[in-house]
Amino acid sequence: MRSDLDRLMADRNLEALFIVGGGHVPNAPRTYLANGINVNGLVVKKRGDVAIVISHPMEIEEDRHSGLTCLSLQDFGWAELVQQAEGKRTKAEIALWGRILERLAIPPGKIGVYGVGDIHVYLEFMKLVAQAHPDNQFVGEMGTTLFDAAYATKDETEIARIRSVAQRTNAVVSAAWNFIGEHRADDEETVIKADGSPLTIGDFKRFVRRNLLDVDLEDTDMIFAQGRDGGFPHSRGQADMPLKLGQAIVFDIFPRELGGGYHHDMTRTWSIGYATDAVQEVYNSVMEAFDVGVEMTRAGQPTYRPQEAVLDYFEREGHATVRTQPGNNEGYTHSLGHGLGLNIHERPSLHHVLREDTFQRGNVVTIEPGLYYPSRGFGVRIEDTFYIDDSGQLVDLTTFHKQLVLPLNGKD
Amino acid sequence: MRSDLDRLMADRNLEALFIVGGGHVPNAPRTYLANGINVNGLVVKKRGDVAIVISHPMEIEEDRHSGLTCLSLQDFGWAELVQQAEGKRTKAEIALWGRILERLAIPPGKIGVYGVGDIHVYLEFMKLVAQAHPDNQFVGEMGTTLFDAAYATKDETEIARIRSVAQRTNAVVSAAWNFIGEHRADDEETVIKADGSPLTIGDFKRFVRRNLLDVDLEDTDMIFAQGRDGGFPHSRGQADMPLKLGQAIVFDIFPRELGGGYHHDMTRTWSIGYATDAVQEVYNSVMEAFDVGVEMTRAGQPTYRPQEAVLDYFEREGHATVRTQPGNNEGYTHSLGHGLGLNIHERPSLHHVLREDTFQRGNVVTIEPGLYYPSRGFGVRIEDTFYIDDSGQLVDLTTFHKQLVLPLNGKD
Repeated sequence: MRSDLDRLMADRNLEALFIVGGGHVPNAPRTYLANGINVNGLVVKKRGDVAIVISHPMEIEEDRHSGLTCLSLQDFGWAELVQQAEGKRTKAEIALWGRILERLAIPPGKIGVYGVGDIHVYLEFMKLVAQAHPDNQFVGEMGTTLFDAAYATKDETEIARIRSVAQRTNAVVSAAWNFIGEHRADDEETVIKADGSPLTIGDFKRFVRRNLLDVDLEDTDMIFAQGRDGGFPHSRGQADMPLKLGQAIVFDIFPRELGGGYHHDMTRTWSIGYATDAVQEVYNSVMEAFDVGVEMTRAGQPTYRPQEAVLDYFEREGHATVRTQPGNNEGYTHSLGHGLGLNIHERPSLHHVLREDTFQRGNVVTIEPGLYYPSRGFGVRIEDTFYIDDSGQLVDLTTFHKQLVLPLNGKD
Repeated sequence: MRSDLDRLMADRNLEALFIVGGGHVPNAPRTYLANGINVNGLVVKKRGDVAIVISHPMEIEEDRHSGLTCLSLQDFGWAELVQQAEGKRTKAEIALWGRILERLAIPPGKIGVYGVGDIHVYLEFMKLVAQAHPDNQFVGEMGTTLFDAAYATKDETEIARIRSVAQRTNAVVSAAWNFIGEHRADDEETVIKADGSPLTIGDFKRFVRRNLLDVDLEDTDMIFAQGRDGGFPHSRGQADMPLKLGQAIVFDIFPRELGGGYHHDMTRTWSIGYATDAVQEVYNSVMEAFDVGVEMTRAGQPTYRPQEAVLDYFEREGHATVRTQPGNNEGYTHSLGHGLGLNIHERPSLHHVLREDTFQRGNVVTIEPGLYYPSRGFGVRIEDTFYIDDSGQLVDLTTFHKQLVLPLNGKD
């Protein structure tokens, strides 16, 4: 949780955080420190103090929307530093870091450097900063970082935003269901538009993206994969493929607030007009697995438990799994879910091998069992996003129904 | 140009390029090596060879759209490496880099590491890789990187894509002009919709974003800044502000291909219904400066020349400039333009202090003079994107007209 940051910094002996990266790029650590607003400047947080933004004069008006104190580069004598560096920007930037350390009275010791941006630049820049300012050690972090640990539990403000994204995403999925339903099929079981031309996956995605924008969300490369494509969990689907009756379609949508912000994540499997017995049978198993997973997810449980329960269930039903046949691409081939927030994948991980996490109040997690049979020409996945409330119970944020067969109501 | 990569690698003594970063994030170096497709895997290019992609099995089908050879992590014995590392993912990844170096027979020496992603992760990961594989030195790059040098001149395939993005962007701007024009104003000079409610900047941006999506482009945070807001070059504009008659509006739009790809960049200044004399006068000066800048831009010219010519012109007309009053926020406060491609800002830079570049065939550059008077309640900027063709001449890719006054045709 955001309020844990000072403790997490102390655990790591970090005197300050410097959040680097380019402007106008989603940068979760920066947005997290700036009250959920995607600012452009360098964000600096000294342990025990609130974060501040150091902005280019041209960006400072925008950065002020974060509510953080925004200082201009000029407040640190940027023009003078550039002059002293004889126009060499890198040299001026290295000196700027020194002025920031001095002005914020950051003590000697470790500084955590985080952010999203050009990796090649910072691999070299941080070496030069370290040489110029030897009283401080500038360190990155791998594995479960300070931010990963903080992201894992959401505060009330974050839950409110995540709930709003969920409501809007569900409304768009509902509109998308109705959109397909308004069409009709031709004699070859192709879904067609009023003019007789096929309705394609590209047409469908365009409809969904427009509807997301209308509620200030942006698509982040949704999956709408029909038939065999749905048998590969991350296949996006082919834009020029017409929708067909009786084919399983995996529709996985995980939009975020426009410009970089909180996500929702949900998957439905639809079969237009009718479902084959083979798809219906696998669908029923996935729905059963979903309920098994939900049943095992609550505060205090280790996060591997629901995955183990789902593995047990699928294996009893005779499906290959990631536990019995690792690396296989048929059966249940992935983990049960993941946390999400500013990032689409966060802690906790609902994985049977990683056994580090326990469900906590404030977790936001997906539960998403699936069965994949590319050899049989289809896959099925069902996914809702939940949060764990103050009483430790799961609250389902994904309210859209889980009907498999999408009937066509279009007139001939 | 892409065909210069081996030479640029040789200049830097790089035996190979490793392009790192997260999946599904715009990552220009990765997209550049993968034929303009935003792949998810690790892209590796040995000097003299074509690039390959090393993909997670779940992503390999998607990554194959790039046309590059895609190998699976499993082809490098990933499951075995994870087992040897006792489930420690970082340890397995370090060993994976060793297998890649070995299998591709990359000689001892320098490896260039590039990409967009989590900076904190790679600051630490690259230290561990370097320790484990001491025959190679893993380096980043600052300043004008190998990729920056290559990006600066576009090949025919790139020009064709950039031209297509330009055509689509111009069509959307034309639709946006007509969209406003279909409205009417009330007695207080507020632009209103059919139901009498004000047309806001938020409404306008939503219209533009939808129209961009319809032609497979995505907005990257356009500027539509009315009145005083337009006096700050990077102010985005306020979503809840109603459009008003007789106010200068700076409309700067720089979309890219959906999911991360090539950009177009153009700016128009509009005044709805009528323009005040003050705005019209400044507008005329900016248009004159635009022509001065265009006149001085052709292959073989140093890139600071057009900026100097525009500075001379504005200063003669009595405006403060970034040369006479650096750091001032009134007058002409920025450089004349920049290259663009997969990134919105690339080489060459049309700056009067940076004097490294000369215009070359294949450059794609903006020319965008502006005058900013927040104290007088407005700003004006005009921007087209050009490319320099095989004969060394400028070709204007921004075909939309430069009329200042946008008449309202809506009926009462």
